[in-house]
Amino acid sequence: MFGITPSARLRPSPYFAATVAEGVTAFTTYNHMLMPTSFGHPEEEYWRLIHGVSLWDVAVERQVELKGPDALKLAQILTPRSLAQCLPGQGKYVPLCNHQGVLINDPILLKLAEDHLWLSIADSNIWFWARAIAAERKLQVAVSEPDVSPLALQGPKAVEVVASVCGDWVRDLKYFWFKETTIDTIPVVVARSGWSKQGGYEIYLRDGAKGSQLWNIFKEAGKPWDIGPGNPNFCERVESGLLSYGGDTDDRTNPFEVRLDKYIDLDVANDVIGIEALRQIKREGVKRHQLGVVLEGNEPTPFGFLWHPIYRDGVKVGDLTNCAWSYRLKKNIGFALIDVNCQVGDRVDVRKDGQPVAGHLQTLPFI
Amino acid sequence: MFGITPSARLRPSPYFAATVAEGVTAFTTYNHMLMPTSFGHPEEEYWRLIHGVSLWDVAVERQVELKGPDALKLAQILTPRSLAQCLPGQGKYVPLCNHQGVLINDPILLKLAEDHLWLSIADSNIWFWARAIAAERKLQVAVSEPDVSPLALQGPKAVEVVASVCGDWVRDLKYFWFKETTIDTIPVVVARSGWSKQGGYEIYLRDGAKGSQLWNIFKEAGKPWDIGPGNPNFCERVESGLLSYGGDTDDRTNPFEVRLDKYIDLDVANDVIGIEALRQIKREGVKRHQLGVVLEGNEPTPFGFLWHPIYRDGVKVGDLTNCAWSYRLKKNIGFALIDVNCQVGDRVDVRKDGQPVAGHLQTLPFI
Repeated sequence: MFGITPSARLRPSPYFAATVAEGVTAFTTYNHMLMPTSFGHPEEEYWRLIHGVSLWDVAVERQVELKGPDALKLAQILTPRSLAQCLPGQGKYVPLCNHQGVLINDPILLKLAEDHLWLSIADSNIWFWARAIAAERKLQVAVSEPDVSPLALQGPKAVEVVASVCGDWVRDLKYFWFKETTIDTIPVVVARSGWSKQGGYEIYLRDGAKGSQLWNIFKEAGKPWDIGPGNPNFCERVESGLLSYGGDTDDRTNPFEVRLDKYIDLDVANDVIGIEALRQIKREGVKRHQLGVVLEGNEPTPFGFLWHPIYRDGVKVGDLTNCAWSYRLKKNIGFALIDVNCQVGDRVDVRKDGQPVAGHLQTLPFI
Repeated sequence: MFGITPSARLRPSPYFAATVAEGVTAFTTYNHMLMPTSFGHPEEEYWRLIHGVSLWDVAVERQVELKGPDALKLAQILTPRSLAQCLPGQGKYVPLCNHQGVLINDPILLKLAEDHLWLSIADSNIWFWARAIAAERKLQVAVSEPDVSPLALQGPKAVEVVASVCGDWVRDLKYFWFKETTIDTIPVVVARSGWSKQGGYEIYLRDGAKGSQLWNIFKEAGKPWDIGPGNPNFCERVESGLLSYGGDTDDRTNPFEVRLDKYIDLDVANDVIGIEALRQIKREGVKRHQLGVVLEGNEPTPFGFLWHPIYRDGVKVGDLTNCAWSYRLKKNIGFALIDVNCQVGDRVDVRKDGQPVAGHLQTLPFI
């Protein structure tokens, strides 16, 4: 593994010191910040997420804050998902597209008030995008990056830990809903959400100086449930079919290609960016779709981090956009972004350094 | 040092294999790509740049291609520097600002033709920005990321190496001018430019499959001048006063604060983004400016990668945005983004882990 050179362009998170104390060994970068990617025990970290509770520094999920009388208007212009029914205290998964209908991010929108929204973004610069649109359309809204840094507790025991810290009301919180509160006077937003399918919460810290304090509160509270450090888990997210914007998408991917149909409302207003392009794509049909690939063999087959070409009957039909060794399935599995004529059950091969690795297509998620 | 975890969100460059063969030990990320930051011998790499010739993978300097009848119109809307006198074959350093006059990138614009431009960008997403503006203003221009990856040769001997490969015409190339040509049938653009003050060229590779081939051509050709691998050199760029967008700037930095006055033409047309805000800032005067800081002491004092607060007479007056041990000056030096009332010669102290380190302000560049 190569080293990462620190840079003022790549900020540490408010939980940096806490994760160093926990023995973090590697990082990735995301939204110009460092995110832990390993604490040195990958399989242990995986099973902790599946069976227990894992504590994650996901401060890199930055907030694009929209504030002002036109905040909601701007948010609706930015996403082709209707926000008409979104209530204060509610979050929604909202794909963002450009004018050509290409996916440019897939944030969670949190509606704090009618004039105050956060877009909790994936890894692309939505501040620039939203500011450009707001200014060009002369909307009355301030677009900024607030001092807000999510910490995630994920896994089946997360509810016990968060309830022990925040109270039993968190048990009744509906998925993607949230509440503004404090933990030992630290201002936070507690949301039922997170980038795994094992259940859990995201605690949006609203004071960057309190990162270690918040981390340690949950570390202590979680001891009865054997809490430990982790991070968005590559194996689990592949098993669970979770999309990684920028990892599983390219510069021409539209939301219909990557299973986001149900988050697109084609009858939203015509001033929504990309809506005309999306209607046209829907009329004409997509050219690619996203399926699972299960490779043959019973040993981990590292595929590196590039996309790998997928062939069917000797013809290139798409790309393998990720590949993980599944600890539960004991198979190498990944996502295919592939010709729409390829279907579940088709036999394919993936080229690794020019050599074919056989497999077949199946539905997502795997588990 | 921590490891960097590979990810499909962080692409390797076309020179990745070549730099691994050269013994690269660390990377940073920049425009969602990996850039080498060390080959394990920092001082040797520095002196090679100062006295000889150094070969850099700077493929992360991505191109935002503007193509179509409104390409030039869009470029002028994006930058407050007048492009009226820019000729085909000419490059220009063009600050880009948002509608509030905040610096959002500082690319080199290369004018390939009247309807074909590249913005060779620093580390922020100008594709999103330019696409938003082009679409909102209904301009006839395609904004894309072409298959173009710069390789840099920097240092006083660079001219000899590039002339030996391309011909003596490169000796007459004026600074920032360029020419489209081929090297052993590999399509390239040869520009006299680069992110150092030691002179040199950037070779814009136009076929990503030929990275190792191009690297090795220059590696072989450079042997008489003892060429070796390097990367944008932190010490040299600090000594030379070169700005790092995103490193030395924050979310409210305007170009006047960071010595870019001469690249701003306040009489450009009113449809240029940010021009009204820039005129107002100029009228009212800036609140911060950028100066050098020389710290006391004769040993390297690692400051880490965060900004550090600067105090004068016990009052916080600004931030140290970088700090390098200068191999030539034998001092710790850095840039201050500091209250405009602070002047060259002022004694200041920089807080490192709460402890003051004394120093004084001086003009940039240091050398």
